[in-house]
Amino acid sequence: MDLPADAPNGEELREARERIAPWVHRTALMSNATISRLVGTTVLFKCENFQKVGAFKARGALNHLLQQPWERIEKGVVTHSSGNHAQAVAWAARLLKVPARIVMPENSAAVKVAAVRRYGGEIAFCEPNDEARETAARKIVEETQSHFVHPYDNRDIIAGQASVGLEIVEQLDHPELILAPVGGGGLLSGCALAARYYGTDLPVWGAEPELASDAYQSLREGRRQPAMPAKTVADGLRTGLGELNFGIIRSAVKGIGLCSEKSIVRAMRLIWERMKIVVEPSAAVPLAALLEGTIDRGGRQVIVVLSGGNVDLNRIPEILALDEDG
Amino acid sequence: MDLPADAPNGEELREARERIAPWVHRTALMSNATISRLVGTTVLFKCENFQKVGAFKARGALNHLLQQPWERIEKGVVTHSSGNHAQAVAWAARLLKVPARIVMPENSAAVKVAAVRRYGGEIAFCEPNDEARETAARKIVEETQSHFVHPYDNRDIIAGQASVGLEIVEQLDHPELILAPVGGGGLLSGCALAARYYGTDLPVWGAEPELASDAYQSLREGRRQPAMPAKTVADGLRTGLGELNFGIIRSAVKGIGLCSEKSIVRAMRLIWERMKIVVEPSAAVPLAALLEGTIDRGGRQVIVVLSGGNVDLNRIPEILALDEDG
Repeated sequence: MDLPADAPNGEELREARERIAPWVHRTALMSNATISRLVGTTVLFKCENFQKVGAFKARGALNHLLQQPWERIEKGVVTHSSGNHAQAVAWAARLLKVPARIVMPENSAAVKVAAVRRYGGEIAFCEPNDEARETAARKIVEETQSHFVHPYDNRDIIAGQASVGLEIVEQLDHPELILAPVGGGGLLSGCALAARYYGTDLPVWGAEPELASDAYQSLREGRRQPAMPAKTVADGLRTGLGELNFGIIRSAVKGIGLCSEKSIVRAMRLIWERMKIVVEPSAAVPLAALLEGTIDRGGRQVIVVLSGGNVDLNRIPEILALDEDG
Repeated sequence: MDLPADAPNGEELREARERIAPWVHRTALMSNATISRLVGTTVLFKCENFQKVGAFKARGALNHLLQQPWERIEKGVVTHSSGNHAQAVAWAARLLKVPARIVMPENSAAVKVAAVRRYGGEIAFCEPNDEARETAARKIVEETQSHFVHPYDNRDIIAGQASVGLEIVEQLDHPELILAPVGGGGLLSGCALAARYYGTDLPVWGAEPELASDAYQSLREGRRQPAMPAKTVADGLRTGLGELNFGIIRSAVKGIGLCSEKSIVRAMRLIWERMKIVVEPSAAVPLAALLEGTIDRGGRQVIVVLSGGNVDLNRIPEILALDEDG
């Protein structure tokens, strides 16, 4: 199936990469002998947990804002998010010296609120449901003439996240397979485009929790399925797939592997304990799928994108408890 | 004051570094803008949490074993430790293909026991007191003709840990000040020797919890003070100072800064949350002392040795609770 007509092209990916390069980290690749042995091949981890704001989201948000005419953003930018996109927009807006207004559900964790404030974001609380979030954001757009930034269903955002894939292609002589988690699909579709335009025989796979398997179902049904109830511990992956994202994923992604909640917790523990790095549950989903054997990697080495490291340490006991009898 | 006559010399430090280099990591230096801002100068972290066995202890243990005549170790090696030294000896012995017998208190955490077993160590449990540990180790030495490896009061061990300092001198054009935690004193005395022999105007400071301030007291009294009751959360620093270590520290270390338990927990949280890396409480002690202002750094930039990353994730709630009202 062809790529959607409005998917960013190869030139746009390269431009996005150059545009954001002065402000984001070219993150390291790390490996761990124990984990590679458990998986059965060399696994390299692309450490976006070390990225600005602690997650790949900094790339897309900045790429989008840097392309807006000044008149469109000088009064400010707005988004609704309780996660890494909120921090990314606040961070990128501060770089551009424009106000950031972030709509967050009133039951958001205190650390997430604090993180957004740390980057200078103003917070507007709303009731914890999608409708209230969208209404609140729309109201702010109208009242303040702020510019709305979608978290994933946006070609600039996708082109920005694609820089993860471009870096992988640069950093390795022959990357064999890229594996990224999928929530809204910005990271996965970006990596798939990067591999399509700049890789050589470089398949891209996605990984998703069973409890949030709308992307897997969407691929199987051939049309976009709605998000599932927000139950998975991988809180960054609870959102539904974007439309443009789905079009790209359908065309350019090889497959999506699923994993259980227990596998996610075990994979996260492995990464923390063996690699000594902090990753959020969503970032552990690809390793969980690899260990469950749901990625058909056909003997290839794997580059796993560790999407982020923003986890509330106070949540650790509750997260580990999901694997208590494991 | 002169260095003790039996302190390793500069040539021995260089040889130790070369001897162990094929098997240990030259660990990265990392920095973080927020932490540097909080401290008031650039802080670079030498990431020994990414070292083999997750702590600098791999360096000294390997340097010691590689210098033993085969007859002395072929029947095995033995040590008593409930911490990183146990893993380091088991790891180094496995490299040399000799048995490792580790005496551990019967109340050791399950993860520590598992870690030693992972490296192939045989464990002999004993009652949880110093006398029982030493008796058990001596008995094993007699029964099996194993070779005993002291955790820190040993010139090969000190020369091995000194490679941390040698790497810092190599990795930076002008390192300005090295700051390392002090327990038995192997790491601190090694770094001080490295700075003395290979640094240029490079002061070395130690950092210690108030609840385990025997090194601080020893420097003040001019003679070695016994270890304090094992109360600090920084479990790697509860041990008393070695004799050779004290002699080197007295001669070559500029001073020792103290910190409270709360500061340790806050510093650890900062490192986890901002740098996205896993460190054990002991490794956070230098940053805690810096933030408390007990290191007289005189405007210098600081290189902090992050000594290790071996922390039981199940202990996290209990550790964070020490700063609950903070």
